Amino acid sequence: MKHLLSMKQLTNDQILNIFNVARAMEHGQRSAMHTDKFAANLFLEPSTRTKSSFHIAERKLGLDVLHLGENDSSMTKGESLSDTLKTLEAIGVNVAVVRQSEVGVLNDCTEDLNLSVINAGDGCGEHPTQSLLDLYTIQEHFHTFENVHVAIAGDLKHSRVARSNAHALTQLGARVSFITKPEWQDDSITNHYITMDEAVEQCDVLMLLRIQHERHNDRSSQTTYLEEYGLTKQREAKMKDHAIIMHPAPVNRGVEMDGSLVESPKSRIFRQMTNGVTIRMAVLQTLLKGEL
Amino acid sequence: MKHLLSMKQLTNDQILNIFNVARAMEHGQRSAMHTDKFAANLFLEPSTRTKSSFHIAERKLGLDVLHLGENDSSMTKGESLSDTLKTLEAIGVNVAVVRQSEVGVLNDCTEDLNLSVINAGDGCGEHPTQSLLDLYTIQEHFHTFENVHVAIAGDLKHSRVARSNAHALTQLGARVSFITKPEWQDDSITNHYITMDEAVEQCDVLMLLRIQHERHNDRSSQTTYLEEYGLTKQREAKMKDHAIIMHPAPVNRGVEMDGSLVESPKSRIFRQMTNGVTIRMAVLQTLLKGEL
Amino acid sequence: MKHLLSMKQLTNDQILNIFNVARAMEHGQRSAMHTDKFAANLFLEPSTRTKSSFHIAERKLGLDVLHLGENDSSMTKGESLSDTLKTLEAIGVNVAVVRQSEVGVLNDCTEDLNLSVINAGDGCGEHPTQSLLDLYTIQEHFHTFENVHVAIAGDLKHSRVARSNAHALTQLGARVSFITKPEWQDDSITNHYITMDEAVEQCDVLMLLRIQHERHNDRSSQTTYLEEYGLTKQREAKMKDHAIIMHPAPVNRGVEMDGSLVESPKSRIFRQMTNGVTIRMAVLQTLLKGEL
Repeated sequence: MKHLLSMKQLTNDQILNIFNVARAMEHGQRSAMHTDKFAANLFLEPSTRTKSSFHIAERKLGLDVLHLGENDSSMTKGESLSDTLKTLEAIGVNVAVVRQSEVGVLNDCTEDLNLSVINAGDGCGEHPTQSLLDLYTIQEHFHTFENVHVAIAGDLKHSRVARSNAHALTQLGARVSFITKPEWQDDSITNHYITMDEAVEQCDVLMLLRIQHERHNDRSSQTTYLEEYGLTKQREAKMKDHAIIMHPAPVNRGVEMDGSLVESPKSRIFRQMTNGVTIRMAVLQTLLKGEL
Repeated sequence: MKHLLSMKQLTNDQILNIFNVARAMEHGQRSAMHTDKFAANLFLEPSTRTKSSFHIAERKLGLDVLHLGENDSSMTKGESLSDTLKTLEAIGVNVAVVRQSEVGVLNDCTEDLNLSVINAGDGCGEHPTQSLLDLYTIQEHFHTFENVHVAIAGDLKHSRVARSNAHALTQLGARVSFITKPEWQDDSITNHYITMDEAVEQCDVLMLLRIQHERHNDRSSQTTYLEEYGLTKQREAKMKDHAIIMHPAPVNRGVEMDGSLVESPKSRIFRQMTNGVTIRMAVLQTLLKGEL
Repeated sequence: MKHLLSMKQLTNDQILNIFNVARAMEHGQRSAMHTDKFAANLFLEPSTRTKSSFHIAERKLGLDVLHLGENDSSMTKGESLSDTLKTLEAIGVNVAVVRQSEVGVLNDCTEDLNLSVINAGDGCGEHPTQSLLDLYTIQEHFHTFENVHVAIAGDLKHSRVARSNAHALTQLGARVSFITKPEWQDDSITNHYITMDEAVEQCDVLMLLRIQHERHNDRSSQTTYLEEYGLTKQREAKMKDHAIIMHPAPVNRGVEMDGSLVESPKSRIFRQMTNGVTIRMAVLQTLLKGEL
């Protein structure tokens, strides 16, 4: 396998192997440097965090980085993503990291390509490296997934993180529950919903998803969200001692959670960002060595 | 000569010398690395392919790259291109690659500059490295230009590629014919026109130019274009065995040519992209060594 | 001190020490290379010159560079600057160079950060590296600041350069005078104004500030500005033999000064740009070594 497009393509062994590579890198094991290779970061939708995280991971592996963005013209000239990837192949790019809005389109583009492609978010589809860094952060804390209870809260209908994580966590043996508004439920993911008050008492991992401001018309509904579905200080106090709080960031402080909890002892939010670089290094390394 | 602004400034010997440098690089000859030098890519008009190609060429030579784009403010602050180039010189840039819309303006800006400038497209003017990579691709296949018949099809009035290539090919001894709509004829290039049906039977190289979507009002005129002036499968079947198809890309599949022909055996379209990196390395190398 | 946010935080010794580091670098002293470190250039307002200057300084020190711009999404998603800086810290960035519009906001963001922050312009607030390169250019010419008479001309009300330089020059022992329109006077800087005709006869350094086109409604007021407040050829002829002309650039040729004087013998305008790279290298080096 040359590409990482979906969590669904990965076996448990492949996931755990990526984590082993990541752990070795974190402990200073120096990987072969890819100083003669090129990565292209093709971000056709806005992203700061993921783009920056990939940039740092690529450079730490010695890869040279080509940045292509929303304004790059061949896109506006009507060139298809498939032709863009063939162009990158022709000019010598070895791995392309792609964020764009059409779910699943990369599956059709990558068949005969002689470069590796990483899906860095395709609309409401998947975002496998975000999922891997979330899982890695859980494994780092609990050293296992067996019977770890993960409660995922947010807009399930529009979250690629929820979809990828729900699938992979279940496959790895974790228990997954969901908290969401009725209008954000998604039957294709689950029909097992609990309340936030139940979640904070039961879960080992509370995984909060970002609420899109665009979908809220006024500040009042945001305040309501915190009270009904978010992590208030009162709720946080009821969490298990060993439980952790996760969020893909950026956090809407005061919406998904009380702002002061972002830097609280249970929070792994900034640790997730640090792990994101490590995991992306491990994925790049694994793909470039053809070991996936 | 310190700059490459136009194909008209190059003698045949200079062109062939650039090709020799390119060929040596392609065969793995390691050039002196310019790790202490800076390139600035100043793209005031959109471009993905050319910008990416230069970036990779520059990095392969060890050059550090500074990217300046349409949004960069000194331009919007009314700074002239001449002052921008002087600024780049003052901060230590060694070579500037410039795409902008005013024909010929670089001639006025580069007189006393202590850095090299490469014209990467000036409106409907010239685009010499595109021309060089086209010529290199022809030489690679035919090992000569003498009596090679090149048929160029497209909007001659607005094509900087047509202008540069027509001039250089003639100078190198090739025969050049043109296929175009009556309203796209340009007397300053030629008055020798043939039909596409004549071209496919006679030519050794069929060089298709990109049709600007902006100039077509409806899909129907695009379909008409393929039938009247484009390369259909039927026409391709009539081409000489050794003939090749070229296109500067991105191709409008189904307009300039049948989409399936882009990856066909006669097509050199992706090879042109690969050669683009090599040629740009050779041009940069030649300019930086002051050998042009 | 880990950050450089304002000239007001620097003692004379600290300023002169930065100049010593810069001078040693200029004379080829090779500093320790920071090839394992990352700089993030976060320019939320347009800038070409400062951004390019920092890029080259960073790369010359071996730093890897991450560029974040106006379009980067976490900003548009409502993430605060403070959270952005914490994110950069979490993904492994060592120094952040920040341009944005809110005066003084960096003071509130940088308290517990484990990365260095450089203020590269905060609205009408400060721009300390511009100030340092101006001072360095004066020291280079006069070898002292004692009794050097610096006349600053321009829109004092909206100039962060005027504010930073007036403060630092006075602290270093220089004499500072000001030339401006009545409506651009700023009592928080000075109440000592002279005319341009007085200035050219008296000053050792004539420091012209950029006039914002946005604040002028017509070309005629620009011509008037040159005649009343700008440096005409006639005025330049009256300057002392050893006096120099400075401008942070880009110059509006024909507004702040006669266009032909930009490259005249007294002008240090392009020298300022060259010094800008050296000074930024020295600031970065000093901050990264924790010596400020």
